[in-house]
Amino acid sequence: MLPATGAAGTSERGWGWGGGRAGPRLSAGARDVLRRALGVATGLAPPVPLEQIEVRASALSDRAREGLIRAVGAEHVDEDHRARVAHAAGQSYEDLVRLRGGDGRGAPDAVVAPGSREEVAAALAVCREEEVAVVPFGGGTSVVGGVEPGRGRFPAVVSLDLGRLDRLVALDERSLTATFEAGISGRRAEALLDARGLTLGHFPQSFEHATIGGYVATRSAGQASAGYGRVDDLVLGLRCATPAGEVRARPIPASAAGPSLVELIVGSEGALGVITEATLAVRRRPTARRYEGFSFASFEAGAEALRALAQAGAAPDVARLSDAGETSLALTQAAAGGGLGARALRRYLRLRGQRRPCLAIVGWEDVEGEVSRRGARSTRLLRAAGGLALGPRPGHAWARGRFEGPYLRDDLLDAGILVETFETATTWDRLAELHRSVGATLTGALAARGATPLIGCHVSHVYRSGASLYFTVLARQERGCELEQWRAAKVAASEAIVAGGGTITHHHAVGSVHLPWLSAEVGELGVEALRAVKARLDPTGIMNPGKLVPWEEGSSPEPARRELRG
Amino acid sequence: MLPATGAAGTSERGWGWGGGRAGPRLSAGARDVLRRALGVATGLAPPVPLEQIEVRASALSDRAREGLIRAVGAEHVDEDHRARVAHAAGQSYEDLVRLRGGDGRGAPDAVVAPGSREEVAAALAVCREEEVAVVPFGGGTSVVGGVEPGRGRFPAVVSLDLGRLDRLVALDERSLTATFEAGISGRRAEALLDARGLTLGHFPQSFEHATIGGYVATRSAGQASAGYGRVDDLVLGLRCATPAGEVRARPIPASAAGPSLVELIVGSEGALGVITEATLAVRRRPTARRYEGFSFASFEAGAEALRALAQAGAAPDVARLSDAGETSLALTQAAAGGGLGARALRRYLRLRGQRRPCLAIVGWEDVEGEVSRRGARSTRLLRAAGGLALGPRPGHAWARGRFEGPYLRDDLLDAGILVETFETATTWDRLAELHRSVGATLTGALAARGATPLIGCHVSHVYRSGASLYFTVLARQERGCELEQWRAAKVAASEAIVAGGGTITHHHAVGSVHLPWLSAEVGELGVEALRAVKARLDPTGIMNPGKLVPWEEGSSPEPARRELRG
Repeated sequence: MLPATGAAGTSERGWGWGGGRAGPRLSAGARDVLRRALGVATGLAPPVPLEQIEVRASALSDRAREGLIRAVGAEHVDEDHRARVAHAAGQSYEDLVRLRGGDGRGAPDAVVAPGSREEVAAALAVCREEEVAVVPFGGGTSVVGGVEPGRGRFPAVVSLDLGRLDRLVALDERSLTATFEAGISGRRAEALLDARGLTLGHFPQSFEHATIGGYVATRSAGQASAGYGRVDDLVLGLRCATPAGEVRARPIPASAAGPSLVELIVGSEGALGVITEATLAVRRRPTARRYEGFSFASFEAGAEALRALAQAGAAPDVARLSDAGETSLALTQAAAGGGLGARALRRYLRLRGQRRPCLAIVGWEDVEGEVSRRGARSTRLLRAAGGLALGPRPGHAWARGRFEGPYLRDDLLDAGILVETFETATTWDRLAELHRSVGATLTGALAARGATPLIGCHVSHVYRSGASLYFTVLARQERGCELEQWRAAKVAASEAIVAGGGTITHHHAVGSVHLPWLSAEVGELGVEALRAVKARLDPTGIMNPGKLVPWEEGSSPEPARRELRG
Repeated sequence: MLPATGAAGTSERGWGWGGGRAGPRLSAGARDVLRRALGVATGLAPPVPLEQIEVRASALSDRAREGLIRAVGAEHVDEDHRARVAHAAGQSYEDLVRLRGGDGRGAPDAVVAPGSREEVAAALAVCREEEVAVVPFGGGTSVVGGVEPGRGRFPAVVSLDLGRLDRLVALDERSLTATFEAGISGRRAEALLDARGLTLGHFPQSFEHATIGGYVATRSAGQASAGYGRVDDLVLGLRCATPAGEVRARPIPASAAGPSLVELIVGSEGALGVITEATLAVRRRPTARRYEGFSFASFEAGAEALRALAQAGAAPDVARLSDAGETSLALTQAAAGGGLGARALRRYLRLRGQRRPCLAIVGWEDVEGEVSRRGARSTRLLRAAGGLALGPRPGHAWARGRFEGPYLRDDLLDAGILVETFETATTWDRLAELHRSVGATLTGALAARGATPLIGCHVSHVYRSGASLYFTVLARQERGCELEQWRAAKVAASEAIVAGGGTITHHHAVGSVHLPWLSAEVGELGVEALRAVKARLDPTGIMNPGKLVPWEEGSSPEPARRELRG
């Protein structure tokens, strides 16, 4: 959402986006504008150095350690401080606040890195036998507590790092399917496909670090999913190692053989087992790409335009719409960062009567002729719906910065700024009201604790029946009560989402963060059905305790929700 | 597959396609050609009259009857011979052979017709309490034993007829979603949508009789599913009454909230509960339709052409390809039925060097401009792939006869001809070999018992990664051993499908017929996961016993398969 400027950072913190390695940085100018706007008066607050992050002594028993070493080799059972900190959390605001403050007490007792499907199965067998909880870990980019090393009722927990399972297992260029091991990153998978003129077309913002297994386990969607489909549309088959054995669904284009086993494992978040392989539909790499900007006089008008596109079967491959708050924030920051184009653009939009403009980005990726034709058709429909064509510049600016957002977050935290995102989706008839009610609720919840937030929202995925809403919130951190401040806001926003008919998560998954609202979505009996599957595949409950659905009978997530609501 | 001629029939048998009511008939000419070709020397074999079909005395206990009457009203608990026979079976060849021969011993003890979601729940509560098995019944068009009234371990079984649940509950014209009660027929649902300028676009061959609930319960696909999507693509939310309570998934365009609960109920075949309502994506009714014929020199060449279309994102909304056997059969029958066009067409194709032509039908349903443009693009690709354009005549002939096939089956049975269909799907790399191996296996299995069959096959659904194969088989009936003859052939074909990497069913569901092969598809542990869900939602196992997955622990379908294989 925010434009990045300046040289790439060079620090390596072992945590933070991309492990804290080189990435885009927020300019000092933009940072200061934001601090002023949010009323941040405190000084900068850099994180504690990695080596000062406190972790507990490893609770792994000697028998468990020996068993795991037999399963994967001594060099792949890592109890070092650095490895444990790097696997202590995902990338939610809460995760970052805790680690920046030196609290690594949630770290796993060891990091175990199997090198094959067989080693995954062997490691699970040891953990089941020795009563060790297992948290599968891909890119570690979960923002919902999905890789949080929960112990459940077990004395020890290991993070099962799948980074060594990084092969392209099979490529079927006739059927356009690729079978990957789960731990390969999205970026590397794309590079291997690109060498054959192919693409998966799955580009979540976490693309550089997230893994294929993580995509599947979290039911993710990419920035071009309007065109390529969500990951649940792309998975044709998979293998999943569970404590009770392997679940395997052979790759088949479509089937009527009962409830979908694939759809039971997709989104299972490591709570049923470890996805070890997935066969995905791929496409021939597009030979042409075009991204364009449009501006609308209101969010409602822009949403109606996207609805018209989607329902006419004319949805671009990328279709995004920022609300006035997000558009304003982006233009302000671009201007603060020295982007003169942003000022000129704002003047132009005012001249055209758009005082609170809402920027849309649409993009097509296809063969040349289809990009032209589809682009022309979409453009006609967007203009007819009141869109002001801004040409390719805003589109290409978006494309350049599409993976940058999370890097900037670390700089915002340095600056004493609360920054978090969350998302939902609903049907078109509820979209505008959900956008309004969630924004108002969030503002109210933060204001009640004395902070006046900046909130932006965008549609990032459109369907014939509805669209997603992705919120970004910035506010002055409540020093000393950072977690309480955010939790109060998150609970309020989640309740507003459920009340407004939205899903509790459109592409970030349930994890531990959204668990209290799962039953609002699928009902108590739906949760019980999932729990029954978990009890069969993970009889002792070692798999990712506390995520998706707790194993224990009668431990419905509902009480937790009531507790959160006070 | 076969052209219908002659006046519509007027008999009403209470069973057979459409309840044996008026429908297209096979011409005497076509019938005689077929009898000669198949070597049928026996006389015609009409079915026994309805009133002579033997059923068992109702085993419903007085308490169960009274409870059900309290739940749904006395006029909706029907123990009459006629109602019981009409719910005794689906529409598989085996079903028809049994009923035609007077064997109605599989009939349910009563037919119970609830009028609301509440009455469904009340009826299930009575059945659970009184230990009565429940078989949900929509249009009764299952060809896989899905509505076969299995008793399981219970003394009595009722057929739960959902015909009174036939309302359009809600229509959201902004989000383009429609919520239907489960028992409304596809045809009536389309009529209601049509009145608002909308369509579901779901046209299985059973469209006139099958129900929305049946579509969802069997994971069905329609003839235009390449364009509109399979039913699993269309369902956004649903309600399902189970013995343990209601499972409800609210309609949401897309979600990452864990494994898909919707996808767990879609395809559950009444074995988990009774689908009572479904919310489906609808579209604006197309304002233009165009169907065209193409001919290919071989099945492989035609399949390659469809692959090129699908992978270029240029798939028509309807895309079918008959193999040489099916094309020949259709042309022969059309000629025998007096269709001079068929003879001329065959001469023309010979002149153009296609001695064993394979006919393809492609169709577009959209707004005028898009039909033209998409049609032109597909046509270019089909010609480039060797397709000979035959113009709109074959396309419109297909469109006219698209729902006729099953009616003709009753006439073929009268004529002493075994007639059955089954289907599969696989990835493109395996398609041609699967087509060959299944055809050869089927021929061999029937020949081993002395019949030389006519076998036709078509692709009816194309995907980027693969396609479906739909086989039709005709053979001389083995009098007195009709069921044994077909079972031997079906087992052999199913084994060939599994061995060749196909799904055991692409759109007919599992039912009782495909149960022995489910574990080959999803693995033993996959079956166990489904069984765990069933045990939670249907704790005593009253729901559709013997379908999809038996309830009893340890009663894996695998032994049944071994038994079948001998």
